[in-house]
Amino acid sequence: MPRVELIAVGDELLSGLVLNSNVARVADAIGGIGLELAVVVDVRDEVSEIVAALTAACGRAEVVLSSGGLGPTSDDLTRDALAAAAGVELRRDPALAQVVASRYAEWNVAVPEAALCQADVPVGAVPIPNPRGSVPGLRMRVGDAVVYAMPGVPAELSGMLADHVVPELAATFAAGGVAGRTIRVALAGESVIAAALAGVELDGVRVAYLATPGDVSVRLAGTPTAVVTALARVRAALGERAYSDDGRPLAVVVADLLRDRGGTVAVAESVTGGMLAAAFTDPAGASATFRGGVVVYATEAKAELGVDPALLARRGPVDAEVTLALAERVRERFAATHGLATTGVAGPDPVGDYQPGAVYVAIASAAGSEVVRRTLPPRRDLVRALTVVHAMDLLRRQLLGLRPYQG
Amino acid sequence: MPRVELIAVGDELLSGLVLNSNVARVADAIGGIGLELAVVVDVRDEVSEIVAALTAACGRAEVVLSSGGLGPTSDDLTRDALAAAAGVELRRDPALAQVVASRYAEWNVAVPEAALCQADVPVGAVPIPNPRGSVPGLRMRVGDAVVYAMPGVPAELSGMLADHVVPELAATFAAGGVAGRTIRVALAGESVIAAALAGVELDGVRVAYLATPGDVSVRLAGTPTAVVTALARVRAALGERAYSDDGRPLAVVVADLLRDRGGTVAVAESVTGGMLAAAFTDPAGASATFRGGVVVYATEAKAELGVDPALLARRGPVDAEVTLALAERVRERFAATHGLATTGVAGPDPVGDYQPGAVYVAIASAAGSEVVRRTLPPRRDLVRALTVVHAMDLLRRQLLGLRPYQG
Repeated sequence: MPRVELIAVGDELLSGLVLNSNVARVADAIGGIGLELAVVVDVRDEVSEIVAALTAACGRAEVVLSSGGLGPTSDDLTRDALAAAAGVELRRDPALAQVVASRYAEWNVAVPEAALCQADVPVGAVPIPNPRGSVPGLRMRVGDAVVYAMPGVPAELSGMLADHVVPELAATFAAGGVAGRTIRVALAGESVIAAALAGVELDGVRVAYLATPGDVSVRLAGTPTAVVTALARVRAALGERAYSDDGRPLAVVVADLLRDRGGTVAVAESVTGGMLAAAFTDPAGASATFRGGVVVYATEAKAELGVDPALLARRGPVDAEVTLALAERVRERFAATHGLATTGVAGPDPVGDYQPGAVYVAIASAAGSEVVRRTLPPRRDLVRALTVVHAMDLLRRQLLGLRPYQG
Repeated sequence: MPRVELIAVGDELLSGLVLNSNVARVADAIGGIGLELAVVVDVRDEVSEIVAALTAACGRAEVVLSSGGLGPTSDDLTRDALAAAAGVELRRDPALAQVVASRYAEWNVAVPEAALCQADVPVGAVPIPNPRGSVPGLRMRVGDAVVYAMPGVPAELSGMLADHVVPELAATFAAGGVAGRTIRVALAGESVIAAALAGVELDGVRVAYLATPGDVSVRLAGTPTAVVTALARVRAALGERAYSDDGRPLAVVVADLLRDRGGTVAVAESVTGGMLAAAFTDPAGASATFRGGVVVYATEAKAELGVDPALLARRGPVDAEVTLALAERVRERFAATHGLATTGVAGPDPVGDYQPGAVYVAIASAAGSEVVRRTLPPRRDLVRALTVVHAMDLLRRQLLGLRPYQG
C-alpha cells in the first residue's frame, strides 16, 4: 500500500476556531479503497510554508493530497507553491482561462485580471475538473510522488475525491479492486467491540475503528469477496449492537425503520434541551417521520405538557415516572406512534439526590411504555450527547423488537 | 516572536471521525499571549513517525508543543520518541513512580509493571504536574527548541497549558507582558469586519480573525496598554455588531442580558428543529433564563401550539404571520417574557414558493412582536446553523433596544 499524506492549507486551520474537518472527508474517501493517511500537516497561507510541507511530504510519501489555497485571492498560494516545489513555471492555460472568463460573462461582469490566476497551471500539471466550483484541481508529479491539489471547500473536495482522485488511486494502487463497508455500533465502546471481534477470522481485510461519543464505526476494506465474508462475520459477532452496515447514521436508520412501519416520533426533552429533536431533523426528509417536540427545561414546562403537578412536586424533575409521563404526553400531543423523553442531570451541579450523569430515557407507544436509567460520565457535553444516542437507540430497538441496551 | 509548532499524536486523528480539537485549545491558549501556531502535524502512534515529526519541528521552531501519547498503554509512545529525538535514555523517576503507585493503592490494586512506564522520563526532561490526570507532562530541550509534551485528554491539556506552559512561554518570550482580548461579532462576515476596521489605528497589536458560520472572533494581542486602547477602538468601529468583548459566546451573552433584566425566553422552532433550544441550554445554568421550547416540525404541530389552522392553511408553514404567531403562542405557553420562533426551508427541496435558504425569525415580548426575513446560503446545515444565530441576535438586540441586524 502506498504511503499517503495530506497537506491542509489555510490560516484558519491554525488560528483556533476552525477544525480541519477535511481530514475526515479525505480519510473516509481513501479508507473506502483501503488506504490510510500517514500524516496530516496544517500550514498557513504562505508560499514558503507550503513549499516546505510539500517538499518534505513528497520525499516520504507516494501520494500527497492537498486541500485549500486554490482560489482567486492573494492568499491562495498552493499553485505557486506547487510550481516552486517542482521547480517549474506557472503557465496560463488558455482553455481554463476561457472557462473562468465565461463564468464571469454569465454574471455580466468583465473578468478581473486577478481572477485569471485560477487558470495558471504549473508546467506538467494536469487540471482536474471541478463542476461544483470555479477552481480546477491539479495533479502533478513532484519528485517520486504524485500530488493531488484539491479545493478546500468541503463539497468541492468531496466531489473531486469521489469523481477523480479515489478512482485514479484505486486504479493505480489497488489492481485487484478494493471494496469498503462501514458497520456502525451505538453505545458500545471500542474495547467492547474489539473484544466481540477478537475471535473473528478477518483475513485479507483491514479493520479500522472510528469513535465519537456513543458511536463507533468499524470500517472494513479489502477485496470485494473478502469484505462480503468479513461483513457477515462482523455483523454476526456484533449482533443487535450494530445498527447499520452501510455507514448510515443512527438518525437515518431510525427514520427509515419508522417510515417502513408507517410510524412517527415526537420527543419531550429536559436534559438534552433540544439536541434530540435537532438530531432527528438533521437529515433531509425528516418531516416524513418526525412530528415535533417539546423542550421541557423548566419544571413548570413539564406540568404544562400534562405531567401531573403532584407527581412533579413529589418526585422532582429527574425521575423515572416523570420521564414515562413525558413520553406518553408528548406522544399524545403530537399524535405520533412513538414518544421519547429524556430527563437527567447534565451538570455541573447535582439536582436533588441526582449527581451529574444520572439520566432517564423513556419510550411510549401502542405497545406500552418503558423507562431506562443510565449513569453517564459526569461531563455536561457528554451527558447531553450520549443521552441523545441512548434515546435514539431505545426507539431503534423497540422498532426491531429488541430489549433496551444492557450497559 | 518565537515560531511555535504543534505535533498531535494519535491514530484516531488520522482515521477520519475524530477531529483534532486540541488545535483550537492550543491556539486559543497561546493566542492569549500573542503567539500563533505556524504548523500543526498529526501523526500516528508509531515511534518512527513521532521522532520524524519532532526532529523536523525542532529544526524549524523555537517552541514545539505536543499532545497525546503519554498514557500507560503500549500505543503511548511520545516518551520513547522524545528520548530518541534528543538522543538520550529513558530513566524511571522514583518520585513519579511513587505517585503512580499511590494512585493504584487508593484503588486497592497492585500497580501493574506496565503502568510504571508513566514514571519514565527522558534524561534532561522536567515533569510537568498534571493534577487532572495521572500522567505528567514533560518539558525538555531537543536541539535548539524547547518541547512541551502534554496529554491529549482535553481537560488535562487545557489545564496544563493554563497552569504551566502559557505562563512559562509568557515569561520567556513576552517580557513586557502580553494581554489578549477577544471581541465577538454575530452575522457579519470577515470581509465586512475587516472593512469596518480598515481605518482603525491598531499599532502594537496583533489582530486575528477566527470565523465559524455566523460568528467571527476578533482576537487582539499585545501589551496590556496597547490592547486596552485597541479594544476601545475596535468596539467603537464595530458598534452594535460586536456582542461580546470578553470572548463569551452569544448564548451566554443573551442569557446574561436576560438574567440582568429578570427576563426569560421560550422558543418555537420549525427550520432549526431543536438547535435553537440546544444552543440556549448548552451553557451550564441555562435553566435560570430558558423556559422551554416546542419543535413544531410538522404543520399540524404548529396548529397544536395554537396557531390559527385557517392561517396555516392559507399561508403555509413558511410565512411571516405564522412565524409571528408561533413566537407569541410559545411565549404565552411557557409564561416567558420573550418568545422566539423560526420557520423556513433548510432544503434540499423547496417548500411552496420558498427556496432553500428562505427563513423567518420572529420575536414576541411585552413590547410587541417583530418578524424578519432572511435569505441564507442554500445549504441545509448552514441554513439551520445561521438561523440559530439570527434568532439569538434578534433577542440580544431587542434586549439592548437595538434594531434587528440589517444584512
